[in-house]
Amino acid sequence: MYEGALADLIEELGRLPGIGPKGAQRIAFHILSADTHDIDKLADALKRVKQLVRVCEICFNVSEEDRCRICRDPRRTDENICVVEESKDVIAVERTGEFRGRYHVLGGAINPLEGIGPDNLRIRELMTRLQAGETKELILATDPNTEGEATATYLALLVKPMGITVSRLASGLPVGGDLEYADEITLGRAFEGRRVLD
Amino acid sequence: MYEGALADLIEELGRLPGIGPKGAQRIAFHILSADTHDIDKLADALKRVKQLVRVCEICFNVSEEDRCRICRDPRRTDENICVVEESKDVIAVERTGEFRGRYHVLGGAINPLEGIGPDNLRIRELMTRLQAGETKELILATDPNTEGEATATYLALLVKPMGITVSRLASGLPVGGDLEYADEITLGRAFEGRRVLD
Repeated sequence: MYEGALADLIEELGRLPGIGPKGAQRIAFHILSADTHDIDKLADALKRVKQLVRVCEICFNVSEEDRCRICRDPRRTDENICVVEESKDVIAVERTGEFRGRYHVLGGAINPLEGIGPDNLRIRELMTRLQAGETKELILATDPNTEGEATATYLALLVKPMGITVSRLASGLPVGGDLEYADEITLGRAFEGRRVLD
Repeated sequence: MYEGALADLIEELGRLPGIGPKGAQRIAFHILSADTHDIDKLADALKRVKQLVRVCEICFNVSEEDRCRICRDPRRTDENICVVEESKDVIAVERTGEFRGRYHVLGGAINPLEGIGPDNLRIRELMTRLQAGETKELILATDPNTEGEATATYLALLVKPMGITVSRLASGLPVGGDLEYADEITLGRAFEGRRVLD
């Protein structure tokens, strides 16, 4: 129903994840009435991200330099490596303020249905890092779903023989959650992982 | 937590309507992994919309030319003008295929709380169009909410003395809807506007 540049914009916006046809239309009209300077900033930000952002040569986190901010930080320890699926997971862990080691971004999880096997992830690169001998503990922070569990199990089998402690993030009830609404698998895990109070 | 170009992009995306911080992050990572050509197309579409799209000098619908597609169409009648709040409403009416007249986009609705009075809308321009004497019916298709009703009432008072038929879109139950879930005002309107079957 729209035509020309407006139709093109609605179409392009509609390709983005989480934006449906109505949302694309709403954003397009917002852009029409917004300040041209602001829209230029958005368009430039899009192009600059494609030009500047790549992955860290050590941990494969997003970075604008050869090595990411975390790998460059001399105050962090090389003794602990936290393995995550995606760069966004690095941010999630960083927000907790609990971890002062390094990361390794796998670039996904093992998913046979989608044809993603160990060779499609940065597992070989992780092994090379571990062979340097600095690492004492490998924390497996892949997602607590089927694919993430499979990946963690696979990595544990691979790494334990190297004499490195391998740990997995605890599964259980989310803080602030409601026991009544917890699914049975989560509640089962919470029972399994219960701690003695002292 | 993010830095550089990626942080800028997440911030700019987060300013768009309907996109929260999580959505902005998700879209930014999609853009990172998308084809550069596709992202260039999106960035260009943003800039071109700002450069090319303006409003029709007659009806104030969005247009890339002085007069919009509908105002240029010789097969449409000048006898009926449908008054809407926004350009998106033109598209909504066009989708019905019920209307073959012209439009007038007010640019909003009367809203004293937000300081929008009749002078902030394109009512003077509507009056000028009506004074040309071609119009037989003015269809008020402003939204069926307080502001839209106030605007319709205001316009009806202004236009009726000119001898032009003024009509308002019917209020009632949405087709495919459920009587049980209709709010009492809508159901009341549906009663008021009931039609004798013959």
